[in-house]
Amino acid sequence: MKRTITSLALLALAVFVQAQSKDEAVIRQIFDQALSQGKSYEMLEELTTKIGPRLSGSPGAAAAVEWSRHKMEFLDFDSVWLQPVMVPHWVRGDHEIGRINSKKRGTIAVNVCALGGSIGTGPTGIAAEVVEVKSFEELKSLGTKGVQGKIVFFNRPMDPTRINTFAAYGGAVEQRGSGASEAAKYGAVAALVRSMGSNPEDYPHTGSMRYAPNVVQIPALAISTRHADVLSKLLKEEKDLQVYLENHSVTLEDTPSYNVIGELKGSEYPHEIIVVGGHLDSWDLGQGAHDDGAGCVQSIEVLRLFKQLGYKPKRTIRAVMFMNEENGLRGGLMYAEQAEKKKENHIAAMESDRGGFVPRGFTVPTDPTARNKVRSWKPLLERYGLTDFSTEGGGADIGPLARLGVPLLGYLPDSQRYFNYHHTAEDTIDKVDKRELEMGAAAMAALVYLIDQYGLK
Amino acid sequence: MKRTITSLALLALAVFVQAQSKDEAVIRQIFDQALSQGKSYEMLEELTTKIGPRLSGSPGAAAAVEWSRHKMEFLDFDSVWLQPVMVPHWVRGDHEIGRINSKKRGTIAVNVCALGGSIGTGPTGIAAEVVEVKSFEELKSLGTKGVQGKIVFFNRPMDPTRINTFAAYGGAVEQRGSGASEAAKYGAVAALVRSMGSNPEDYPHTGSMRYAPNVVQIPALAISTRHADVLSKLLKEEKDLQVYLENHSVTLEDTPSYNVIGELKGSEYPHEIIVVGGHLDSWDLGQGAHDDGAGCVQSIEVLRLFKQLGYKPKRTIRAVMFMNEENGLRGGLMYAEQAEKKKENHIAAMESDRGGFVPRGFTVPTDPTARNKVRSWKPLLERYGLTDFSTEGGGADIGPLARLGVPLLGYLPDSQRYFNYHHTAEDTIDKVDKRELEMGAAAMAALVYLIDQYGLK
Repeated sequence: MKRTITSLALLALAVFVQAQSKDEAVIRQIFDQALSQGKSYEMLEELTTKIGPRLSGSPGAAAAVEWSRHKMEFLDFDSVWLQPVMVPHWVRGDHEIGRINSKKRGTIAVNVCALGGSIGTGPTGIAAEVVEVKSFEELKSLGTKGVQGKIVFFNRPMDPTRINTFAAYGGAVEQRGSGASEAAKYGAVAALVRSMGSNPEDYPHTGSMRYAPNVVQIPALAISTRHADVLSKLLKEEKDLQVYLENHSVTLEDTPSYNVIGELKGSEYPHEIIVVGGHLDSWDLGQGAHDDGAGCVQSIEVLRLFKQLGYKPKRTIRAVMFMNEENGLRGGLMYAEQAEKKKENHIAAMESDRGGFVPRGFTVPTDPTARNKVRSWKPLLERYGLTDFSTEGGGADIGPLARLGVPLLGYLPDSQRYFNYHHTAEDTIDKVDKRELEMGAAAMAALVYLIDQYGLK
Repeated sequence: MKRTITSLALLALAVFVQAQSKDEAVIRQIFDQALSQGKSYEMLEELTTKIGPRLSGSPGAAAAVEWSRHKMEFLDFDSVWLQPVMVPHWVRGDHEIGRINSKKRGTIAVNVCALGGSIGTGPTGIAAEVVEVKSFEELKSLGTKGVQGKIVFFNRPMDPTRINTFAAYGGAVEQRGSGASEAAKYGAVAALVRSMGSNPEDYPHTGSMRYAPNVVQIPALAISTRHADVLSKLLKEEKDLQVYLENHSVTLEDTPSYNVIGELKGSEYPHEIIVVGGHLDSWDLGQGAHDDGAGCVQSIEVLRLFKQLGYKPKRTIRAVMFMNEENGLRGGLMYAEQAEKKKENHIAAMESDRGGFVPRGFTVPTDPTARNKVRSWKPLLERYGLTDFSTEGGGADIGPLARLGVPLLGYLPDSQRYFNYHHTAEDTIDKVDKRELEMGAAAMAALVYLIDQYGLK
């Protein structure tokens, strides 16, 4: 009996070791292929330079839908289809104007842009005195007396001491999202928000804002971090200086658009679906290279790498280009709605929406069993720089799948440079490094491979 | 007795926990300071834009010596001095010319540059047929019959599948260093070497080459990776095409120069010295931003951060800007020679010469005790992205200190983008990210702090 147990244990060990070394070899092949003949960068060059910006409802977004569909058809995925979804349609209009009118210093042009969702100022703009605040508490303490008729200047920077720049962003972004309505409660005529950037920069960062119900809607613009510092300094010298803002944004009727989906059918468990995705829409200022062209092409590349290597997945692997992450999340909501309606069995969903930077790790599922399973694969992944499995969560677009109990993951690249480009005219292909981008796709493919082999239960 | 032991154990634990939490707090302060008010980037901007390239013996190198001295004096370090050293003086001369002369395709200009140390072609250049090889073995098998009178084109790429790009570099760089003399043994008239770059690029990478003794000296040039691919393709069509090369390099007399040294005197063990350094010289094509302006300013910043935070080191901390790493290592050799002569007691030396990229970890001493001690600090460092302590070694400039038994370490940033810029006209300040650079300085300061507190024995 003892001998039998020992033999069985040895057999189990041998099987385990064999599996480990097979997985090691497959993952090595994935990285070798991506780093020597990967197509992520080539695809991203096409998407960013032939199409460029692709805000929901824009011609660019429509062209990106067609581009993704054709790309995945050309790559001969088993099925490629469009999932219809109605999306918001906000239009920036003519270039914004920002000016500081100082009695002491004269007129100083400042770089501003409308925040996504903002109303326009009208063609005659808004000129008013400015009150600077660092928080909603400070705004509240000023009250109507201090705010009425003024432009509220929200100037709390992203905390530079946070190592994770997404945490710094999280600590500042309420100013952009809710600042206008908070200011309007006290009679402000516009909100001017310090850009969500990590550094002193000359260009403003756009991004979505939302009007609270039953509050007067006022224009909301972002100002570059460098000009925010200039304005703050001048306000210390001259409390009653005026700022002039002009923007021409307008929200039009909702527009038909699509999520774009391609899949490789599972050979053993075709009804078990693994999603890997990014969002196809981008802000209108740059090319949406890091945000989130990178995540889209990496998701397509995961499936392409499998085909290229002759790997036949056991489960069905789906690349999903979600529409409208930036200003509505309609694509993510529709995808989950349809998955529920069709009673699809999603065993995992992974998003890449933190830029095309060098791999650091993955965000992991909140479910402890799934989370521990992902972490157990760290020895296979850490040699590729994938060492951080500390954070839980997935991504915005796959978020609605949580309701269906789907374990959510996210690709986690290094975060240091992300907020140099995020939502700006600087988010262009030349800011993406080919090796870093391809390594990201390989990292995602490696983890999808492991989930395909072993599931997350 | 048992109670006493328990009490002692508890006391020891308490002291340990207290020390841990003090170290945690100090390291946190170092990062906070560097990320909110660090000066590395500002210093690097000065060094790269006010001075720029600084090859040994050049006016730029002399200016950089003065700049470093003044900077460390301005920062009020306890002592600042110059250590004289004679350095090689190689001069590129007028811009190089490279042309493919094809009977089928006409004349195609290609981007080339002389390798450091190369002789010139003379004003009439060299026109000859080309033979492509991927290795010295292949060259040998061609022999004099296949090589005589020709230009040998060394075209083995850096292996893109190596995750560590320095390993890929190590696998290809012999072509640059020794290719000319290897080719000359078989009667070649010049060596043309594929640039040591990770990607398809339009610009060539320079770097040092050495002539073997008793072998005819022939000109050695690098060609951009993209033009190397063009040339290789054309050679397949037309074996007897000609290449024209012209360069005007010359080696002049050795020139006086200096290592630049600044230090903070140790309060408890002033005779125990910890070196932190980079090399001040750079190649002549770009601004030497990543290679190795970054390492220089980071080394100065380590001491500046200590002063700024009011931290009084127990040991003496020295920032050393070594001269002539790129084409002679004379500064590193002189520093070790003087340390030996003066019987200085160096307890550790750390170099930063892998670019100003985001932290990944440190290379660690070969001595097991010192190595294990460094690795024992990983829990204090990994939250800052410092997770890789796997590789042994230090850096070129501190290498000669090994002979004196000094434990050597190196700052290890991410390597993916380094060979996009290394030794090229693209190695400029705009390729350096401020946060990444400052984090590197903080990482180095954190480890120097721990060594200062606890030594490496």
